[in-house]
Amino acid sequence: MQTPDETGNASAFARLLGLQILRAAEGEALVRMKMHDGLGNLHGNLHGGALFSLIDTAMGQASHSVFGGAPNTVTLECKVNYIRPVSEGELDCRAWVVHAGRRTQVLEAEVHQGEKLIAKAQSTFACLRGGKDW
Amino acid sequence: MQTPDETGNASAFARLLGLQILRAAEGEALVRMKMHDGLGNLHGNLHGGALFSLIDTAMGQASHSVFGGAPNTVTLECKVNYIRPVSEGELDCRAWVVHAGRRTQVLEAEVHQGEKLIAKAQSTFACLRGGKDW
Repeated sequence: MQTPDETGNASAFARLLGLQILRAAEGEALVRMKMHDGLGNLHGNLHGGALFSLIDTAMGQASHSVFGGAPNTVTLECKVNYIRPVSEGELDCRAWVVHAGRRTQVLEAEVHQGEKLIAKAQSTFACLRGGKDW
Repeated sequence: MQTPDETGNASAFARLLGLQILRAAEGEALVRMKMHDGLGNLHGNLHGGALFSLIDTAMGQASHSVFGGAPNTVTLECKVNYIRPVSEGELDCRAWVVHAGRRTQVLEAEVHQGEKLIAKAQSTFACLRGGKDW
């Protein structure tokens, strides 16, 4: 089975950041990011914007998977809590659809490095051409 | 007077995205982003993560300006509302400190393209070595 990366499902911005879309199916997605110098903030840790981009990408993949991978939703709003700083290594973000309505979806995401919780997020996505009950 | 860019105050990630820090002083900052193909999402519009990165960078600059530019704070949490999609051109993000306490700061930010409001955000930053009354 091809991954979303292999099928060309990754956005230009996800490719710029080097995100790996490992899984996206049935309202759930797993995306990996590897820390590198280009993603650093003024403290030398992972920039909050890069971490948010990982989250938004994973949420988008989970959201689109409700429509068989078609990009039929956009982010309306998102809230992220940053829990631990990251200075190196790989991060995994798991995102999942909590509710898929006709007009909107509600999603959650967690970012982990190994066993450690790095960030937690919750968002609302808008359906562009009619949603699907979950 | 040197801009924060010229003084080396831009993070590696801000440079990767091509952000221009135009102003950062007295709890307020102005940062510019130019849309390019590398920042695109699956719809060909500006990726929500790139837009959030512009916001977080502007908030960081506004926050640090309370300490004369020293990076003495980190983002604890941020909520963003996406209002209009962006497909091309330049965006300006203005961020400002609403309250600077000893332990935390509260900030707001708006992103505009010309007269149009593109996104609105609100956040909490943590002070690393003691804050300053505003």
